[in-house]
Amino acid sequence: MERMSEALQRGAGDDLESRVKRAGGVLTIDLDAIVANWRLVTARLRPGSRCAGVVKADAYGLGMAQVAPALASAGCRRFFVATIDEGLALRTLLPEAEIMVLCGPFAGTEHDFLAHRLLPILNSPQQVADWAQFARRREQPLPAVLHVDTAMSRLGLNFNQAKAVAEDRATLAAVPPALVMSHLACADDPDHPLNSGQLAAFAAARTLFPGIEGSIAASSGIFLGPDWHADWVRPGAALYGLRPTPRSLNPMAQVARLQGRIVQLRDVDEGKTVGYGATHRVVAKARLATVAVGYADGIFRALGNRGCGHVGERRVPLVGRVSMDLVVFDVTGVPADEVRPGGFIDLIGPRQSVDDLARDAHTIGYEVLTALGSRYYRHYLGRTEE
Amino acid sequence: MERMSEALQRGAGDDLESRVKRAGGVLTIDLDAIVANWRLVTARLRPGSRCAGVVKADAYGLGMAQVAPALASAGCRRFFVATIDEGLALRTLLPEAEIMVLCGPFAGTEHDFLAHRLLPILNSPQQVADWAQFARRREQPLPAVLHVDTAMSRLGLNFNQAKAVAEDRATLAAVPPALVMSHLACADDPDHPLNSGQLAAFAAARTLFPGIEGSIAASSGIFLGPDWHADWVRPGAALYGLRPTPRSLNPMAQVARLQGRIVQLRDVDEGKTVGYGATHRVVAKARLATVAVGYADGIFRALGNRGCGHVGERRVPLVGRVSMDLVVFDVTGVPADEVRPGGFIDLIGPRQSVDDLARDAHTIGYEVLTALGSRYYRHYLGRTEE
Repeated sequence: MERMSEALQRGAGDDLESRVKRAGGVLTIDLDAIVANWRLVTARLRPGSRCAGVVKADAYGLGMAQVAPALASAGCRRFFVATIDEGLALRTLLPEAEIMVLCGPFAGTEHDFLAHRLLPILNSPQQVADWAQFARRREQPLPAVLHVDTAMSRLGLNFNQAKAVAEDRATLAAVPPALVMSHLACADDPDHPLNSGQLAAFAAARTLFPGIEGSIAASSGIFLGPDWHADWVRPGAALYGLRPTPRSLNPMAQVARLQGRIVQLRDVDEGKTVGYGATHRVVAKARLATVAVGYADGIFRALGNRGCGHVGERRVPLVGRVSMDLVVFDVTGVPADEVRPGGFIDLIGPRQSVDDLARDAHTIGYEVLTALGSRYYRHYLGRTEE
Repeated sequence: MERMSEALQRGAGDDLESRVKRAGGVLTIDLDAIVANWRLVTARLRPGSRCAGVVKADAYGLGMAQVAPALASAGCRRFFVATIDEGLALRTLLPEAEIMVLCGPFAGTEHDFLAHRLLPILNSPQQVADWAQFARRREQPLPAVLHVDTAMSRLGLNFNQAKAVAEDRATLAAVPPALVMSHLACADDPDHPLNSGQLAAFAAARTLFPGIEGSIAASSGIFLGPDWHADWVRPGAALYGLRPTPRSLNPMAQVARLQGRIVQLRDVDEGKTVGYGATHRVVAKARLATVAVGYADGIFRALGNRGCGHVGERRVPLVGRVSMDLVVFDVTGVPADEVRPGGFIDLIGPRQSVDDLARDAHTIGYEVLTALGSRYYRHYLGRTEE
């Protein structure tokens, strides 16, 4: 199966300058900012707690192939991915890293874990039993992470299931736990009663596995305070600049900038309508800029007649519906020399964070990042060459 | 820049069976259904009208590298793409096809068009002037498509701008029009008054360019009737199985099936909450299935506590929020032998079309398709080998 990006690579004109000229949008990713965020989190931790890096979903859409080596060069040794394929891809990038795979093994994939030194996260009694059986067949103990569910009802052993594992000496001998982990449901709401309930449930589960390291906090959990840091924290969102503390200013450095290219400027008269469904009507003579990014690039349709862009410091409203490949901004009043065809409008930038864009789209920054499409020219700042 | 898919290819275990076993989701794409849809559209056209194929946005997320050759093998000779990069990628796939690029040339990309025989669609007076200047420098006429705006206020020349081009003999000599096109804003609403207004405006614009072929209808426009067929129609959505006729049954064959793999089954007691924010509370003893796809795979967060999947013919509600890599279904009442870890739940399939899923997510099927992520195992049925 050949994907478009590969077909393109066989084409000509693939030098950097040509690719920028052809791009309808430019996504700039600051690897040094990601590293700074990893260090900022690390510096907040209680003594003895260490910081892994979550690079699942292609490093939240920003490019695992660039992000993971940057984190490793800053000292990150342990990484979390969601899927087996992501683990395999990360192994080729970082031969020495410790890689933990959140979905755990599916039937018939155990050899992939072993051959590529991926540590499975075992979520269910069946995954535990299957992995133990695999270890016994190999006649070698095969460490794994035990995932304990404390409120998500999503993945993980409940307390009784964890207890059964802890009391099963044969299983423990075959599967020495490398880590006991859980996951918070409401960490972004410091007052939510589930937080302390989960922490207590996690503590209870850990007593089943004395001497084994633990981890419960992802980005927002880290900012709940040192009680949550355990032995390992697992930030993802915070590394990529999303706000882990919804009630206060964002302590993280901004990582991404997204610029859409202006294809056409248009002066329209009062009464004209814009876009599909004619949902926006121009109420006074206006100047419109059509930009070459759309929902196929992750600019959600939910932003239609709601979102905005920026030209420098000036806010320009998004008018009409978002099209698949295009979006229109009202640039009336922006000085003529600041908008021109071929120029750019910021969709994510100094004046509009990923979280801001997400709010207008009725979602969260995580979804904005992971939806960023494959048609952008991706420009990496910072330590690509290390 | 290396993307994850490329890093993965260097890994081991890349045979088909291994890839299926590792996949959290399987996306099956029926190329024969796409071809059948292209033929169904072609058969509806008024005599003399011909059918192009729109394969922009990686063939609406379904894979241009597979879809475009399938359409070509069925007789499709003219293709529309959105971006220059898509044009270049398509040229490597189909050396003989006619390729029209909707965004037109950006400054400095004219040679890409010429070298790869891409026909630019000229949207603005500036694009016309720049392309004409390029042709004069090359001392050869360089055909292009003229895009006339008739209500979108998005891309295209307004009537006066088109008239100025038509009266400029030097420009017409340098840029012989290959096609005059426009685009409908409200074709999915047969009663919308803009439709007839746009058709009349398009007819007026075409009188400026006697003898030049015209095109105004995309998928829904085709189903408005033969008055809209002009010389060329440009279906995209309809080829991919989306309903072009929102008020009646879908005449198109279904193209896509999306199955998410069950990672874990869980029996939970009354009162337990599910997922982030604890937004779903189990009201009676329930059985939950956690499935390894999430919003990073294009399963929109907007589906949280709204969407559903199917096990066979049985509807299973999506409960709690959609996570990045996971989603939970309530499978209470589904016979135990029909849901098992490693098995699948349909997200798009015989009982739930792309349009159905889109409705639950407050969007349109187009956005569902173009958001389909890169982590699925993609399985193509039909004429891959032709």
